[in-house]
Amino acid sequence: MKAVWLENQKLELKTDLPLPELQAGEARVKVLRAGICNTDLELLRGYYPYRGVLGHEFVGVVENGPENLVNRRVVGEINAACGDCRFCRQGVPTHCENRTVLGIVNRHGAFAQYLSLPIENLHLIPDNVDTDVATFTEPVAAALEIQKQVKIGPNDRVLVVGDGKLGQLVAQTLALSGCELLAIGRHREKLDLLAARGIQTGFEEAAIARSFDVSVECTGNPQGFEVARRALRPRGTLVLKSTYAGRLEIDASAIVVDELTLVGSRCGPFPEAIAVLAGDRIDVKPLIQAHYPLDEAIAAFDRAQTRGVLKVLLDIN
Amino acid sequence: MKAVWLENQKLELKTDLPLPELQAGEARVKVLRAGICNTDLELLRGYYPYRGVLGHEFVGVVENGPENLVNRRVVGEINAACGDCRFCRQGVPTHCENRTVLGIVNRHGAFAQYLSLPIENLHLIPDNVDTDVATFTEPVAAALEIQKQVKIGPNDRVLVVGDGKLGQLVAQTLALSGCELLAIGRHREKLDLLAARGIQTGFEEAAIARSFDVSVECTGNPQGFEVARRALRPRGTLVLKSTYAGRLEIDASAIVVDELTLVGSRCGPFPEAIAVLAGDRIDVKPLIQAHYPLDEAIAAFDRAQTRGVLKVLLDIN
Repeated sequence: MKAVWLENQKLELKTDLPLPELQAGEARVKVLRAGICNTDLELLRGYYPYRGVLGHEFVGVVENGPENLVNRRVVGEINAACGDCRFCRQGVPTHCENRTVLGIVNRHGAFAQYLSLPIENLHLIPDNVDTDVATFTEPVAAALEIQKQVKIGPNDRVLVVGDGKLGQLVAQTLALSGCELLAIGRHREKLDLLAARGIQTGFEEAAIARSFDVSVECTGNPQGFEVARRALRPRGTLVLKSTYAGRLEIDASAIVVDELTLVGSRCGPFPEAIAVLAGDRIDVKPLIQAHYPLDEAIAAFDRAQTRGVLKVLLDIN
Repeated sequence: MKAVWLENQKLELKTDLPLPELQAGEARVKVLRAGICNTDLELLRGYYPYRGVLGHEFVGVVENGPENLVNRRVVGEINAACGDCRFCRQGVPTHCENRTVLGIVNRHGAFAQYLSLPIENLHLIPDNVDTDVATFTEPVAAALEIQKQVKIGPNDRVLVVGDGKLGQLVAQTLALSGCELLAIGRHREKLDLLAARGIQTGFEEAAIARSFDVSVECTGNPQGFEVARRALRPRGTLVLKSTYAGRLEIDASAIVVDELTLVGSRCGPFPEAIAVLAGDRIDVKPLIQAHYPLDEAIAAFDRAQTRGVLKVLLDIN
């Protein structure tokens, strides 16, 4: 099969890969569409030494699996858990000690004609959700995870730092909580996408210091972290939503003196994400800036890495 | 009056300072005893540009104040709040925007014959608590603050990193929660003080990676932070209890991937601290390693800065 292969921080379109192996309890999925995520770009930059097929945001059709799923469109949770370690037994399979992660850790990913995942990872997509939109399930779930970790309601002033792919989804999902929301970034045209949804937006100086209850860092860079920290009132909560290539230098004394809480946040709930997309409660379509066929995946990555570009999708089968 | 003056990272014993001014609502306290804290040592190293009389851990006798306090022994909360800013109005005076902090921010401190503090900051010391012991009220309160911020009970595995002054008090107060506790450090003789209280102790290698629910960083150095982070299970909580001179470099991706929570923790509840000391529920006396008269304060600081030394007290009046 064809797939996008990452090795030593180089991408290659391979055309002769075997179909992914099917372990017991796994389904084979024919990939329809896949999205390029910042984590893919960071893996390419060497954030984590992954070697294999890249990609973890996808919609596919089950080709080999249980009857109720075959020939139907699905999305898939990316952490494949062992079911047996202490974290699985505690009901936290996303932190399984032996997990593989689609296109990230020890499991070939979604920028391929086929992938395999445990059957329990797969979720049917309602007919009214189109495939482009459903490709956003994984990042929308990740954005919704914030509200699983931090109680946010109409009385909270919340700042989103970053107007990129992640910041867009985080701001749109936070807006659903009814909180008093401000999204800041560096690109007027990206902020305008949020403004069109009725979200208050601004540049960095709009984030008044020490005035937010919660801030969410969606830039993955140290300046973004500093802006998110400075915006917090004492005892406020900073949600770290981005992975960082390399280490981050922080003012730890400020965290102690202001008694701030930092919360790392990763994968989130797929059923809620599908419900949000199916209910048209957020609008992901304006984020899609290009489609490329799998054969042009290298060009798609070049585009995705271009400053200012939001979501690039691969049309695969 | 005599007092220990800090200016440009130099200490000086001044003998001709005026008595501290008394604002409305403040009491004048004749200082009996004061303790040298790591924050004092960090201020001396330039952690924060303070100029004035140093010191914030003390026991004194009220000389000028309300009748029910005069001539009685008191300890004092160190944050003097304005009572009027948004944080005071929200009931969080320790984060008052206009606060002065005894011996730390814009208020002359306790290494002096006299100090002044708002009357509401003062707490009577029960007769059964001796003055040496009561000098620990402020740091014991700070240690107890952890349990105000993070729910800790018998089912939690908790790690304390650091066997210095702060680590000693944090470990002893955490032990009161009934949690499964391990205190690690680098000094056998300090760890033995905790072992004598029935607390499990060890060196760094005793802290098995990814196995603690909560870790408390009490070293103020980056290695201590790393040890505290690595010891946490996914979704664990790291309490930052030390102030840091300079910036701290962290592995932010690990915080995101493991969905860790970091909690900055500072000043704590004086009434609980006094109750813990009055009830003999912890033992602070073994931490006292030297007494110096105020006239020998410079030598006292030299001693407090000597590697391995725990609490040094100043006998003032």
